Amino acid sequence: MILILKPDVTEEQISHVLEKMEQLGLQAHLSRGTHRTIVGVIGDEDQLRSEPLLAIPGVKQVVPVMPAYKLASLDAHPKSSVVKVGNVEIGDGKLGMIAGPCAVESAERMNHIAEQIRQAGANLLRGGAYKPRTSPYSFQGLGEEGLKVLRDAGQAHDLPVVTEVTDPRLVETVAKYADMLQVGARNMQNFVLLTEVGRSGKPVLLKRGMSATVEDWLMSAEYILSQGNPNVVLCERGIKSYDRSTRNLLDLAAVAVVKRLSHLPVIVDPSHATGRPDLIPDCAFAGVAVGADGIHIEVHDCPEEAKSDGPQALLPHEYAEVVQRMRSLAELMGKTISNS
Amino acid sequence: MILILKPDVTEEQISHVLEKMEQLGLQAHLSRGTHRTIVGVIGDEDQLRSEPLLAIPGVKQVVPVMPAYKLASLDAHPKSSVVKVGNVEIGDGKLGMIAGPCAVESAERMNHIAEQIRQAGANLLRGGAYKPRTSPYSFQGLGEEGLKVLRDAGQAHDLPVVTEVTDPRLVETVAKYADMLQVGARNMQNFVLLTEVGRSGKPVLLKRGMSATVEDWLMSAEYILSQGNPNVVLCERGIKSYDRSTRNLLDLAAVAVVKRLSHLPVIVDPSHATGRPDLIPDCAFAGVAVGADGIHIEVHDCPEEAKSDGPQALLPHEYAEVVQRMRSLAELMGKTISNS
Amino acid sequence: MILILKPDVTEEQISHVLEKMEQLGLQAHLSRGTHRTIVGVIGDEDQLRSEPLLAIPGVKQVVPVMPAYKLASLDAHPKSSVVKVGNVEIGDGKLGMIAGPCAVESAERMNHIAEQIRQAGANLLRGGAYKPRTSPYSFQGLGEEGLKVLRDAGQAHDLPVVTEVTDPRLVETVAKYADMLQVGARNMQNFVLLTEVGRSGKPVLLKRGMSATVEDWLMSAEYILSQGNPNVVLCERGIKSYDRSTRNLLDLAAVAVVKRLSHLPVIVDPSHATGRPDLIPDCAFAGVAVGADGIHIEVHDCPEEAKSDGPQALLPHEYAEVVQRMRSLAELMGKTISNS
Amino acid sequence: MILILKPDVTEEQISHVLEKMEQLGLQAHLSRGTHRTIVGVIGDEDQLRSEPLLAIPGVKQVVPVMPAYKLASLDAHPKSSVVKVGNVEIGDGKLGMIAGPCAVESAERMNHIAEQIRQAGANLLRGGAYKPRTSPYSFQGLGEEGLKVLRDAGQAHDLPVVTEVTDPRLVETVAKYADMLQVGARNMQNFVLLTEVGRSGKPVLLKRGMSATVEDWLMSAEYILSQGNPNVVLCERGIKSYDRSTRNLLDLAAVAVVKRLSHLPVIVDPSHATGRPDLIPDCAFAGVAVGADGIHIEVHDCPEEAKSDGPQALLPHEYAEVVQRMRSLAELMGKTISNS
Repeated sequence: MILILKPDVTEEQISHVLEKMEQLGLQAHLSRGTHRTIVGVIGDEDQLRSEPLLAIPGVKQVVPVMPAYKLASLDAHPKSSVVKVGNVEIGDGKLGMIAGPCAVESAERMNHIAEQIRQAGANLLRGGAYKPRTSPYSFQGLGEEGLKVLRDAGQAHDLPVVTEVTDPRLVETVAKYADMLQVGARNMQNFVLLTEVGRSGKPVLLKRGMSATVEDWLMSAEYILSQGNPNVVLCERGIKSYDRSTRNLLDLAAVAVVKRLSHLPVIVDPSHATGRPDLIPDCAFAGVAVGADGIHIEVHDCPEEAKSDGPQALLPHEYAEVVQRMRSLAELMGKTISNS
Repeated sequence: MILILKPDVTEEQISHVLEKMEQLGLQAHLSRGTHRTIVGVIGDEDQLRSEPLLAIPGVKQVVPVMPAYKLASLDAHPKSSVVKVGNVEIGDGKLGMIAGPCAVESAERMNHIAEQIRQAGANLLRGGAYKPRTSPYSFQGLGEEGLKVLRDAGQAHDLPVVTEVTDPRLVETVAKYADMLQVGARNMQNFVLLTEVGRSGKPVLLKRGMSATVEDWLMSAEYILSQGNPNVVLCERGIKSYDRSTRNLLDLAAVAVVKRLSHLPVIVDPSHATGRPDLIPDCAFAGVAVGADGIHIEVHDCPEEAKSDGPQALLPHEYAEVVQRMRSLAELMGKTISNS
Repeated sequence: MILILKPDVTEEQISHVLEKMEQLGLQAHLSRGTHRTIVGVIGDEDQLRSEPLLAIPGVKQVVPVMPAYKLASLDAHPKSSVVKVGNVEIGDGKLGMIAGPCAVESAERMNHIAEQIRQAGANLLRGGAYKPRTSPYSFQGLGEEGLKVLRDAGQAHDLPVVTEVTDPRLVETVAKYADMLQVGARNMQNFVLLTEVGRSGKPVLLKRGMSATVEDWLMSAEYILSQGNPNVVLCERGIKSYDRSTRNLLDLAAVAVVKRLSHLPVIVDPSHATGRPDLIPDCAFAGVAVGADGIHIEVHDCPEEAKSDGPQALLPHEYAEVVQRMRSLAELMGKTISNS
Repeated sequence: MILILKPDVTEEQISHVLEKMEQLGLQAHLSRGTHRTIVGVIGDEDQLRSEPLLAIPGVKQVVPVMPAYKLASLDAHPKSSVVKVGNVEIGDGKLGMIAGPCAVESAERMNHIAEQIRQAGANLLRGGAYKPRTSPYSFQGLGEEGLKVLRDAGQAHDLPVVTEVTDPRLVETVAKYADMLQVGARNMQNFVLLTEVGRSGKPVLLKRGMSATVEDWLMSAEYILSQGNPNVVLCERGIKSYDRSTRNLLDLAAVAVVKRLSHLPVIVDPSHATGRPDLIPDCAFAGVAVGADGIHIEVHDCPEEAKSDGPQALLPHEYAEVVQRMRSLAELMGKTISNS
């Protein structure tokens, strides 16, 4: 940790800063510059982080040197992690291909979609039973009935299933049916929920919040990991932007950034990122190119009848083409699509 | 609702669009332009909103005409609402002055701060017992013990109390001690929590999410209102920005925008918005000037010992000066600070 | 300047860093932490800034300690500057009230508007003769003819005039007619233009770029100041945002930030910031409240006939009410509107 | 164009709107909805765009139906354009590989770098002679001397050269030496400069502004095209973001968006976008994957001695690996690197 002192700091204030550091059991190195004085502080940065150093009189700026996440960092685990969801591996060269409708609508439709995405080459089935909707008047999902429908469709077509959980009180219920729990973008800093999905031990798909930095995102992963659950897969799904030509702004460089900071697998969701089916194939392709460990795409057999987010879904045959292109790219990069 | 059709839309697709609208019991007006064809759709816009119109072949863009919130809108309630918290009124010319430490730390400290902010002119006491912290390793609050300490300090100094709730399972507990429940920025779209605080019937302080539009924010208020709880006070606390000279970007024009869309009171929080004590007084003053119904400021008697967010707190005597300036401005604007 | 070294930095790399600093005639202090090694570098920070320190092997992060602007900083000039435009003073308690149409349209209209804003209490007249338009097919301004019209209207009503210059080749021409040169938001980092307006010696109104940090903005002011022209007035006019409820996002806290970094006057432009006449009065009021040295508002006597940006203009009688409110606020704050 | 009227619009105002449209020679279709009245306006949208429709009393919102650019649109030119720079083709399956140092520093260094990037597989040489620097105290480039050095190095190694022009007065001079003129991000809306490079007829590399929407960017291309110069290549180089893990935010989906709106070639610049050499290779690879027509990378043989932006440059041997990977990806996608 480095403390940059104010230009008009007094000698008394400097002494107070140094004493304070000593009281905390830390070593402080004072450097007096031409225009500014700085204090390099050596010791446990976590302890320091919990101290309001900026509130000490005379301190102008605090520069942390270490990231605040530990378990999520490459320091803690220098090799790429592989997360296993059912029999599907994600990470370290194995691609997870998650597909399915935004919401579970009926058993018949779910079965039909599952069959088609399986044929297309997907290895994980998604579908929402509890939908976080911006409006209280929109369709909120089928609840536990939807979970059963999803699980049955997954079992019928040998696809482990992923579904979102939004309520800490329902983590146990959702975990009974699902192979992987999704934490949505709006809940990325719902620390109560993160703690519960951490406790469940189930694989977690952690979507990036709409205005989360990469560090915020890894801190949220840390919440899950710190509960003893190492099965976290990150998912980039676009952040807020001033440009409305896509629904959100897909931040593919963030995938490359995460790979240099963390061992956790990262997948890319071009459906939510763009909100435009015409852009999904190219963005999915670029996602794998930049180093992602998988792709999450919404697929629906009749988007104009979808109860939620129909406009951002691909048709099954369009999805099949995407997987086809993905296979050739994966091969070029020395990767494989798990279990397909 | 207006549908703008694609330049290459076929006659068949146009017919399909018109049939679809008819099936939904809506009236459609077709206008063929030189370059584009548009369809004006008349009927219940809520029903329309739940339909994936953009997924209908040939539709390029959907332009909603009405906002999706109802109860929060001026149409529903053309007069400014007044929300009563204990004996303090907020809204329609009455200013709520919320002050107190970020976190409840001890009974002694809480009492001391409460006493001083009361003297300074605050009318509501804040303090966190459950802290949503970015890091799982940071101080997480004193829990129910903290709630008691807060309530006692409030009662001793005749200040109704406000505190954050982060877990839907704890809404009932928090509501036992608090006069007003705060929903934090990170939980603005935690719809499960919004529904629970709505059901509690307690006054709610709803902070704006870090990347929420004004419409998103009002939709979240709608979640609470739609549970039959009309006691919502909005709080602007800064949004994400590329500029790091302040912690967040205080969006004061949003206060003026809300006033033209909704009857709900809005207060401004310059502590979280700026993260800089030196800027808090001027930003608080500007907040009232732009039309806010109150100000939320963190106050601590020894910021360098605060367990959370010390650097953004004012000292009690600095806070007293802020209230002093506020009084003269309020007078100029024909407003008053409730109960002070 | 502080250099944070990489976790896996070698002893050889550390020696190379230290040698490099010595070669540059700088003093380096090495601090070895538990997890990281840092180097505090003392000497001329400007010289350092021009060195690609981050490219030295083993260096992970470079933390500058001093701002890169000098002449614009409070260190260089601790007292608030006053910029004189004709007989009007801006800064240090004197408010500049700039008003007028977006574009100069005709002598008759200009005269009529000038007369009315003078009566309303404005002290500076604005109007564009060279318009930077997003589309090459939009009205581009009347050119030199427009400058004459503007100057004549200003002289007839005792109002110094402000107008935008967009071309370095026209600075001399514009300076012949105008009392103050405006550099628009899109040209804030047009360094060639900044240098020319700096050389002209004329007062300059420097608008903030749409994605400029406060530091970027002050660096652009530095370009002008470094040409020996001390007459710079900054103008906050909103930055880009994801929320479309206003055209841009008015960053009033930035005014307070600038006041703590620089001696230069800052004015606020709620017309361009909001693009909404209904919000202009409240935002202007808040601008003065937060500490601005003046307000820039577009005024037009018939917005629906304006050749540019009509929808964001106030009518003259609406503007008169704004000035009226401003006067009472200025009085409360111990300020005055110059020359009105 | 669609006009959405205010909820409280009067019959008189509606009549005024309709008359106004008639006066302008346009057809208006009125649709009265349950809650809102809308007017569909048919006719020349360009003419409409120049009218301040939003300023007409009773009008709440104006929804344009057509984009404001014409020559840049796919409507005007449905086939992908190919821009020829010297003997190198960019667009429609031919990739431009632009490489070289940020600034021209000396003839010897330039020659050395040119030789190495040529061997690595680059087909265009870049180097700045006029540098737009944030600080007036930074190295501003060698000027015309630098242009000569650049041209000579290009000729010696059979590489057409690209260099930035920042001053409209220097377009002619720069055009004498360069094969392609670059307009930098900070000048993307310097309409005076755009007009001059348009007049020059030379190929132009138009970088996206840091807060430009895709539409803004295409409008700036339109300025150049409307001068009769069809040789425009767009360059995505990252936009502003709240996350500082990369210098800017690389918007790869924007490349896919442009491809659906315009016939112009687009290349990607991961050097300026990320500011981090470790991320450049993966981001370049993803750029081609998403559909870009080329890649712009800064290459320097000794980054720690670079006079400008050294830290974001690759070493020549690192660049060679990037081109190698690019070749295999291009082949997979049925594309080729021009002239290499």
